[in-house]
Amino acid sequence: MFLSASLLSRACAAGLLFFVAVFGLHAQPVDPLPSWNAGISKARIVAFVQAVTEPGGKDFVAPADRIAVFDNDGTLWAEQPMYFQAFFIFDRVKALAPKHPEWKTKEPFASVLRGDVKAALKGGEHALMELAMATHAGMTTVEFEQIVIDWIATARHPKTGRPFTEMVYQPMLELLAYLRANGFKTFIVSGGGIEFMRPWTERVYGVPPEQVIGSSIKTKFELRDGQPVLMRLPQMDFIDDKAGKPVGINAHIGRRPIAAFGNSDGDFQMLQWATAGKGARLGVLVHHTDAEREYAYDRNSSVGRLDKALDMAGPQGWTVVNMKNDWKSIYPTPAAR
Amino acid sequence: MFLSASLLSRACAAGLLFFVAVFGLHAQPVDPLPSWNAGISKARIVAFVQAVTEPGGKDFVAPADRIAVFDNDGTLWAEQPMYFQAFFIFDRVKALAPKHPEWKTKEPFASVLRGDVKAALKGGEHALMELAMATHAGMTTVEFEQIVIDWIATARHPKTGRPFTEMVYQPMLELLAYLRANGFKTFIVSGGGIEFMRPWTERVYGVPPEQVIGSSIKTKFELRDGQPVLMRLPQMDFIDDKAGKPVGINAHIGRRPIAAFGNSDGDFQMLQWATAGKGARLGVLVHHTDAEREYAYDRNSSVGRLDKALDMAGPQGWTVVNMKNDWKSIYPTPAAR
Repeated sequence: MFLSASLLSRACAAGLLFFVAVFGLHAQPVDPLPSWNAGISKARIVAFVQAVTEPGGKDFVAPADRIAVFDNDGTLWAEQPMYFQAFFIFDRVKALAPKHPEWKTKEPFASVLRGDVKAALKGGEHALMELAMATHAGMTTVEFEQIVIDWIATARHPKTGRPFTEMVYQPMLELLAYLRANGFKTFIVSGGGIEFMRPWTERVYGVPPEQVIGSSIKTKFELRDGQPVLMRLPQMDFIDDKAGKPVGINAHIGRRPIAAFGNSDGDFQMLQWATAGKGARLGVLVHHTDAEREYAYDRNSSVGRLDKALDMAGPQGWTVVNMKNDWKSIYPTPAAR
Repeated sequence: MFLSASLLSRACAAGLLFFVAVFGLHAQPVDPLPSWNAGISKARIVAFVQAVTEPGGKDFVAPADRIAVFDNDGTLWAEQPMYFQAFFIFDRVKALAPKHPEWKTKEPFASVLRGDVKAALKGGEHALMELAMATHAGMTTVEFEQIVIDWIATARHPKTGRPFTEMVYQPMLELLAYLRANGFKTFIVSGGGIEFMRPWTERVYGVPPEQVIGSSIKTKFELRDGQPVLMRLPQMDFIDDKAGKPVGINAHIGRRPIAAFGNSDGDFQMLQWATAGKGARLGVLVHHTDAEREYAYDRNSSVGRLDKALDMAGPQGWTVVNMKNDWKSIYPTPAAR
C-alpha cells in the first residue's frame, strides 16, 4: 500500500478544506432568517436557539429533546377566507355528486353544489362534519392519499390564484429550516386532517409524515381481494385542537416540546403545555396584521380567532409576531421555489 | 490570517485520515451482526438491506421510506413466563395497596396481594384490564413516567434475576443498529403500553419516544394548581395488537414500513401490511426454539402464541428466525453493556 505524491497533496488540500470548515477561518455570518426584519421577534427566536444549542451553556438542551411544534393553518400557510381543507371538501362534493343524485336536494350538499358556501355552513359544525365524512371516508388510505395529491396539484386559491402549497409563509419555511439546522425535530400539530396534510408536508415544509399530527377519523384493517387495506370509516377518532393538542403531542411525540408556534386560540393549550416545561422555552404567536399583503384579523374572526391567547401572551412570556412589521416577505416568490 | 507549520501539518494529518475514511484504503469487512450465525436468516436480512440501499439498484428505496417496525414482547425482549408489563402491574398493586384497604377482599386485587397470579388472572381479560386501569391511571403523564423509571431500575426477572432491560436480545440490538446505520428509521409497534415503554426505549434500544407505538389509555389536559398537566384516565384509547397494528402504524407513521419484525400471531397483520407493499420487503418472525438458553414455545403458548403466522410464513415469503440455531448469544453480557 502506498500513497503517491499527487494523492498526498490532494489529501493535504482536503485537510485544509476540512480545517477551514471546522474552525471557520473564512466564515461570514449568514442570516438564517433573511425574510425576518430585525426586531424583538427575530431577536428572541435567535437568542432562544443560541441558548439551547450552546454546549455547556446553562440553557443547553440535548438534541434529542429539541422538539418544536407548529400549527399549520394560519401559522405555516394561510387560512383565509376559510381553512384550505374546506376548499378540498367542497371540490370533492362536486366531484362525487354524479354518484350521489340525492345530494341535489339534500342539505348541506345541495348548497355546496349551488356554490353557496355560506348556506352550506349554516348548519354549523354538524353540517361541516357531514360534508367531511362524505368526502374523507369510504375509501382506503392509499386511495385517499392519491385524491389529496391530485387535488393539491391543481387547486387554486380564489383570491391569489396560486396553488395552496405556495401560500405558505416564507419566514416560517426559513424558521423550520433554521431549527432543523440546529438539531431540532420539527412537528406539525394541526386541527386539520392528518391524512390531508401528510401527502405534501415533506415536499413543502420538509416535515415527514411521521412528524405530522392532526385530526383523524377511524380506520379499519381488512382484506380486499386478498390484499390488506386500511378502510377510512365515517367516524371521528381524534380532534387535534385546543386542549386536544397537548393530548395529540403526548400520544405521538411522547415528550414535551421546548418550542411551540401557533396563531389562534386553538393553539393556546399547546403553547401553554410547551412553555410550562422546565428550562428555556419559546412560545410564538403569529399575529395576522397585514391586510395589504395577506389578511388582518384576530379577536372577531370566525377562522383563526385570536383572542384569549393574545391576552395571555404577555403574562405567559410568549412572543407575538407582527406579520406586517416582522416579515419582509409573506409568500415565497414562485421563481425561488 | 496565517497558518503555522504545526497547524498545516495537523491539517495534512486530518486530510490523510479523511482520505482513508472515504476511500477505505484500510477497510476490513466488519460483520454488522456478530451474534447471528451464518445461515439463511442472516443472509436474507443482509441481502435485503444491501438491495434497498444500493444506489441505482432495482430495489433501491429512498432513505425517507426506509421504515422498519419491531414488535417488543418476544421480539426485542423476552416475554416469559408472562409479559413483563404484568410484573409491573402486580408490583404496583402491592405498592398501592396501603391506599386501598378494600383490595384485601376484592378480586382480582386480593389474589395479587396474596401472590397468587394464577387466581388473579382467572377473571381473564376483564380482570387484567381492571388491574391495568387501577395501576396505570389516576396520575399525570409526568408522574407515571417517573413510576416506570423507578420500577424498571430496580425490578428483576424471577427466573434470571436480571433487570428486565437486560433481557433484551443481543442479536436484535445489533439488527436495530445495523438498520439505522443503513438509513432506516426504526419504530417499536407493541401491544404493550406506549407510556410503559417510552421512558427506557431510547436508552435500551436507541428508539426515541416519538418512534414508539403501543396500546394507550385516554389522557385529558387540565390545570392543576395553575399548571397544565395531562391526566391519565382509566379508559382504553387504542389497543395496538393484531389488526390494530397496521392501524397504529398508519396513525403514527403515515407510511407503510418496508420491513417488519414480530414473533406471534399478534404480529400477523403487521407483517402482512408491511410486506404487501410494492418493491423489496422483509418480514421476519422470531421463533422461540431455545428451551435451554431462553424459552421454547409457539402454537400452544398462552403468551406469545405463534400459530397462524407460522403457517403463513412460507406462503408469504417471511423469514422465520430459529433462535436456537440462528443466534450465537441471546442476552447481552452484562459486562458488554
